[in-house]
Amino acid sequence: MSFQNPVFIPGPTNIPERLRKACDMPTIDHRSPLFGQILHPAREGVRKVLKSERAHVFIFPSTGTGGWETALTNCLSAGDTVLAARNGMFSHRWIDMCQRHGLNVEVVETPWGQGLPADRYEEILTADTGHRIKAVLATHNETATGVKSDIAAVRRALDAAGHPALLFVDGVSSIASMDFRFDEWGVDVAVAGSQKGFMLPPGLAITGFSDKAMAATGTATLPRTFFDVKDMEKGYANNAYPYTPAVGLLNGLNEACTMLLAEGLENVFARHHRIAEGVRAAVRAWGLELCAASPEVYSDSVSAIRTPDGFNATSIVEHAANTYGVAFGTGLGEVAGKVFRIGHLGSLTDVMALSGIATAEMCMADLGLNIPQGIGTGAAQDYYRANPAQAQKVAAE
Amino acid sequence: MSFQNPVFIPGPTNIPERLRKACDMPTIDHRSPLFGQILHPAREGVRKVLKSERAHVFIFPSTGTGGWETALTNCLSAGDTVLAARNGMFSHRWIDMCQRHGLNVEVVETPWGQGLPADRYEEILTADTGHRIKAVLATHNETATGVKSDIAAVRRALDAAGHPALLFVDGVSSIASMDFRFDEWGVDVAVAGSQKGFMLPPGLAITGFSDKAMAATGTATLPRTFFDVKDMEKGYANNAYPYTPAVGLLNGLNEACTMLLAEGLENVFARHHRIAEGVRAAVRAWGLELCAASPEVYSDSVSAIRTPDGFNATSIVEHAANTYGVAFGTGLGEVAGKVFRIGHLGSLTDVMALSGIATAEMCMADLGLNIPQGIGTGAAQDYYRANPAQAQKVAAE
Amino acid sequence: MSFQNPVFIPGPTNIPERLRKACDMPTIDHRSPLFGQILHPAREGVRKVLKSERAHVFIFPSTGTGGWETALTNCLSAGDTVLAARNGMFSHRWIDMCQRHGLNVEVVETPWGQGLPADRYEEILTADTGHRIKAVLATHNETATGVKSDIAAVRRALDAAGHPALLFVDGVSSIASMDFRFDEWGVDVAVAGSQKGFMLPPGLAITGFSDKAMAATGTATLPRTFFDVKDMEKGYANNAYPYTPAVGLLNGLNEACTMLLAEGLENVFARHHRIAEGVRAAVRAWGLELCAASPEVYSDSVSAIRTPDGFNATSIVEHAANTYGVAFGTGLGEVAGKVFRIGHLGSLTDVMALSGIATAEMCMADLGLNIPQGIGTGAAQDYYRANPAQAQKVAAE
Amino acid sequence: MSFQNPVFIPGPTNIPERLRKACDMPTIDHRSPLFGQILHPAREGVRKVLKSERAHVFIFPSTGTGGWETALTNCLSAGDTVLAARNGMFSHRWIDMCQRHGLNVEVVETPWGQGLPADRYEEILTADTGHRIKAVLATHNETATGVKSDIAAVRRALDAAGHPALLFVDGVSSIASMDFRFDEWGVDVAVAGSQKGFMLPPGLAITGFSDKAMAATGTATLPRTFFDVKDMEKGYANNAYPYTPAVGLLNGLNEACTMLLAEGLENVFARHHRIAEGVRAAVRAWGLELCAASPEVYSDSVSAIRTPDGFNATSIVEHAANTYGVAFGTGLGEVAGKVFRIGHLGSLTDVMALSGIATAEMCMADLGLNIPQGIGTGAAQDYYRANPAQAQKVAAE
Repeated sequence: MSFQNPVFIPGPTNIPERLRKACDMPTIDHRSPLFGQILHPAREGVRKVLKSERAHVFIFPSTGTGGWETALTNCLSAGDTVLAARNGMFSHRWIDMCQRHGLNVEVVETPWGQGLPADRYEEILTADTGHRIKAVLATHNETATGVKSDIAAVRRALDAAGHPALLFVDGVSSIASMDFRFDEWGVDVAVAGSQKGFMLPPGLAITGFSDKAMAATGTATLPRTFFDVKDMEKGYANNAYPYTPAVGLLNGLNEACTMLLAEGLENVFARHHRIAEGVRAAVRAWGLELCAASPEVYSDSVSAIRTPDGFNATSIVEHAANTYGVAFGTGLGEVAGKVFRIGHLGSLTDVMALSGIATAEMCMADLGLNIPQGIGTGAAQDYYRANPAQAQKVAAE
Repeated sequence: MSFQNPVFIPGPTNIPERLRKACDMPTIDHRSPLFGQILHPAREGVRKVLKSERAHVFIFPSTGTGGWETALTNCLSAGDTVLAARNGMFSHRWIDMCQRHGLNVEVVETPWGQGLPADRYEEILTADTGHRIKAVLATHNETATGVKSDIAAVRRALDAAGHPALLFVDGVSSIASMDFRFDEWGVDVAVAGSQKGFMLPPGLAITGFSDKAMAATGTATLPRTFFDVKDMEKGYANNAYPYTPAVGLLNGLNEACTMLLAEGLENVFARHHRIAEGVRAAVRAWGLELCAASPEVYSDSVSAIRTPDGFNATSIVEHAANTYGVAFGTGLGEVAGKVFRIGHLGSLTDVMALSGIATAEMCMADLGLNIPQGIGTGAAQDYYRANPAQAQKVAAE
Repeated sequence: MSFQNPVFIPGPTNIPERLRKACDMPTIDHRSPLFGQILHPAREGVRKVLKSERAHVFIFPSTGTGGWETALTNCLSAGDTVLAARNGMFSHRWIDMCQRHGLNVEVVETPWGQGLPADRYEEILTADTGHRIKAVLATHNETATGVKSDIAAVRRALDAAGHPALLFVDGVSSIASMDFRFDEWGVDVAVAGSQKGFMLPPGLAITGFSDKAMAATGTATLPRTFFDVKDMEKGYANNAYPYTPAVGLLNGLNEACTMLLAEGLENVFARHHRIAEGVRAAVRAWGLELCAASPEVYSDSVSAIRTPDGFNATSIVEHAANTYGVAFGTGLGEVAGKVFRIGHLGSLTDVMALSGIATAEMCMADLGLNIPQGIGTGAAQDYYRANPAQAQKVAAE
Repeated sequence: MSFQNPVFIPGPTNIPERLRKACDMPTIDHRSPLFGQILHPAREGVRKVLKSERAHVFIFPSTGTGGWETALTNCLSAGDTVLAARNGMFSHRWIDMCQRHGLNVEVVETPWGQGLPADRYEEILTADTGHRIKAVLATHNETATGVKSDIAAVRRALDAAGHPALLFVDGVSSIASMDFRFDEWGVDVAVAGSQKGFMLPPGLAITGFSDKAMAATGTATLPRTFFDVKDMEKGYANNAYPYTPAVGLLNGLNEACTMLLAEGLENVFARHHRIAEGVRAAVRAWGLELCAASPEVYSDSVSAIRTPDGFNATSIVEHAANTYGVAFGTGLGEVAGKVFRIGHLGSLTDVMALSGIATAEMCMADLGLNIPQGIGTGAAQDYYRANPAQAQKVAAE
């Protein structure tokens, strides 16, 4: 059941010992003041990780998908129009959810591998003089393609168009791993999960709402109870939830924020970038290319690696699991079979990253690709040696 | 943060060592066959605990409240009428959820302390010749009042009326603690949580759907994505979820079902009844009364105990927490301040139960009630001695 | 395998959650500086718990018995004479160990139930003008009889006789539970274990050596390697052991000392006394007597309770285990079958203590003793209510 | 405190999740039948791992060093002569222990890097016609040099000489990792520890005694109490110990034996050999040599790697710890500064081994050795690919 090898899926991540212990709690009374001593610091920690002074943080026993639904149902009404680009499986799924909830989605089809087209957003928003568009959806990091988008540019597009739409950002695989600026970017709803940058088991939808988004809840008529942020707000005021909270995970979240903030957010981001660069050095040494179209959209939390034409990329994932007991991610949707993914987010050391790179290297050779053994690991080793970790100790805890 | 005393809230319960360890897992790939080896036995175990041959079991990273929403949104459409009795805080909340989702609720107001009025249900259903009522809601065990209702009687009411409405049963605080018969009672959707009879941390909504309920999903138009059972069904067929599952809790659920089924469901129910009888013996010795109106509605998972007029029952809960480090439940809604609650579900031994009884006894005396010390604990001790546990070992694991 | 009921053996004790987690560590390099960050604070913590400024603390992967052997083999030579009283099974065993190691033991037979006869020690030491006696052995707390001895009086006896013998004190079941003053009492070797007042799993012999005892190691010729304190001292100077240390337990010991010192040693002792007084109130209510002859020798860590003549006290222990899943201690040696023991040391709350008292009460009635149910628990409840805990929160952690 | 990287010291090893959980137990009564259900299967499991039908297994809360002392003190008397070769630090320490216990040691100085000189043993034993030599000491695997000796050859030497001396074998770093045949080799006392092939935390001395060794205890006069096997034997007959046992570690030992025997001992040995061969392939690719003089003495649990003249091998160990958070072993005694050691025993996967090899490779380059990155990892990858694991799943648990 339990494996000793690290996992290299793009979440859930490897869980640091300290966080496993924080989550593994005996039962306490979730209606006692003791619970407040977990809940409030956890929310405050999340707010800081979001780089926000003002965000209203709501945490649900759910997942990132539940976080999306929280954003939609609390701020919108059936028939509302939203603007969204589809450039990967996760932006696709969010669009699908909108449609199921009776929203009208203006979809900007975008090549998988590219970031969100902020210019196109600006055109559409500028054209929408009647402000039919109520919200703009932006997936900060497309987990399926390993593509990071420029959320600041999306904000600039809204501002340039003078458009009042809300800005919803899916930060599930970016928040706590890559720079995210809730206040500076004017984000209205941010969505994260426990199992990515926060390094926890899955089970929490973590959301931040702006004042503007909170105001929108007053008129939004999409039905909601479990995900209702006003109920949640009322509960929090009494150290409680409207239902039974996931106490252990919240305790873990509090501890995770303590760890991240002690390390320093910029150090956390630099650490992710550095680990990712090692993986990318290996990819170059293998003579392969990333799905991400250009360096400015390279994700620091996951790399989707294109395999040669005619080669089934998914076979690498299966072979790694069966032969070496290592988990990578498969390609999804449009890039299924064309890419495999190495997740490199959360708590990961050089040494752990190298073991993943070595495994991928072995698998590709086992499956007939002409990849000399040691070439990619060596390239990554060279990168890690030349760029020593700043904060190995904290990262490794 | 962690206490050594048992908790006596009506859930989350004390978590057996074995289940804490089952939940505390390192990360595995939730898209690998290994996950299927956890998921499918867990679902099969739940089905058996529900006493069903045919139920479709869906498990969400959520809570019982999310389970209610699952029942409503998958089977109903805005404007549909449902029939529900309000006899406590949890039936009240479910009614409230229906109304928020645009359902029309025919509410049968019922005194708190009494069970569901099956006779009244039958009258209403018989009168509903146009079958306007699409679903009947039934809270099997009202956690707020410690009242168990007769679900078989509700089924008989439906049958007597020849009414096709779906039967939704909230079994959150009954399933895996008290007898529940999905098939025999013709339940269409059953809702449970991980943190009650399954003895796990909170974080799972556990639901069972009948074939009839599954058929209803085809026409139900309430918006749903996170709680969509058809997406879930598709995922399960591939050993997967439509999003990231709570792997550790599912592993714990699998283990919990293994424990419950190894003990034998009838033994589990008898154990709960026996522990509850000891608590009730103490209540009688104290000269107090239960909120539950009569023995046939006494709950075996929680006792709501009325304190004398003019006495603030909630002070017992606060005093127990502050002075003895023990958690009881307060009264909610109509009975706030009038009752305090002793939860006695899940993994509890005689010895643990006695420590809760002794604490309540000390608190009442500390707060001025004339309760001789030892009178209630002695009565419970006499009961437990006269009715020895059948399966102490299994229960105590 | 694991039980939810507290244990009431006189050690190993119930392990607080925090200490279980501290002990459960992944492997680290025990020859790295990191290990020093565990070892040195742990030793320093023990020194403070011993109330010593100067003790040399040595910790072996062993047990209290190994600690006795450490005292003997490092300070004595074959043929040396030691003075010891036999007033229970543990003093008996230490005497036996001396004899096996070729020491000549002057045994002062003392009734089981009485403390060490300091007056008799003084007479013998005064008579020993040739200083044939090299060491005086003193069992601070006889775990077999629940008898505490007056170590200050033994020191006064040595001083009054002007005798240079070393003073070895077995504090296995007293240290960290009852007042122990290494420096003030002029103790030369103190012996403790991890599994009593330190609330840890068994596996450590914890010893403190005075400068005088360290000097004695220079001439002592009893063979020793594993228990050699000079090897240990050399290792410690390099953040290391002469062999592989029990890293997890040492990490736990460090944490245990942090907890004890944060609570305050006097608070720890008062807490033990208070819990013990509740147990003794129950014993009085049952009409039974302690093995300990008089209040000034009552142990605050364990009570040995005499049952009526003709009643097999051991049957209580067996019945409690089989019927209620609760562990008490049997009588040992001279008092086998005549007493049963309730351990009440380490991390124990009122509520836990009451569950043990209630169990004993049920067992005695089950086995035919005329003990009205609730009489002892009620008496203990009255005591605990009248004497509220000062530091419930810390104690309960 | 806790690191996510695997450790590569030659014990304690990485602890599998399953064993960490087995060791982390709440307190149980170590004088109850429940303890017997842990103790006896653990002893039986050890006996099978020793490949013995008849060994008397005794397990002490101690370490391998305590196990040596157990062998000596239970079977020998002061002034007895023993025969021992010194070919590394651990054989050296055992000789030192003999001398401290007043034994007369006939030392055969043997170059570090070579195995035990069975021929020389035979000459000496043949010449000892008076049977002055009471015991022959043999270190099966010299952890300091990574050298495995031929115990069967030592037995043949004894037999050829017709000599009745007892055969004591230090199998601390071989048992449960490399083939060990207690019965076939006529071993009289075998010594192991919990923290090597058994994959547990340190804290247990594990010993097996032959009938002949047990008989020798009757006349052996070295003082012993803590390590007395006859006391232990008496305790075991009552499901108990003569003192407090390390219950959690024993529970872990039981589980470890279950894992090893389920995998199959030959598979366990093959797995160790295979992992070791990968490490040795890397060493060859680096152009370095092992301390072990020839392939037939290569250890499958640890490799001591010679670095070039003038290079301080210990700096690799320090650099790996400081820069990469990885633990290797330093050289000891004669080979201090000349070798560094990679431990590759216990629960280790290809992927984990590769991360250690990559780290060593980076360190050597960082410290100025001309080691192209990827050359050693690539060689190991080629070996692992060409020699796929038979039982990856079991090994990885």
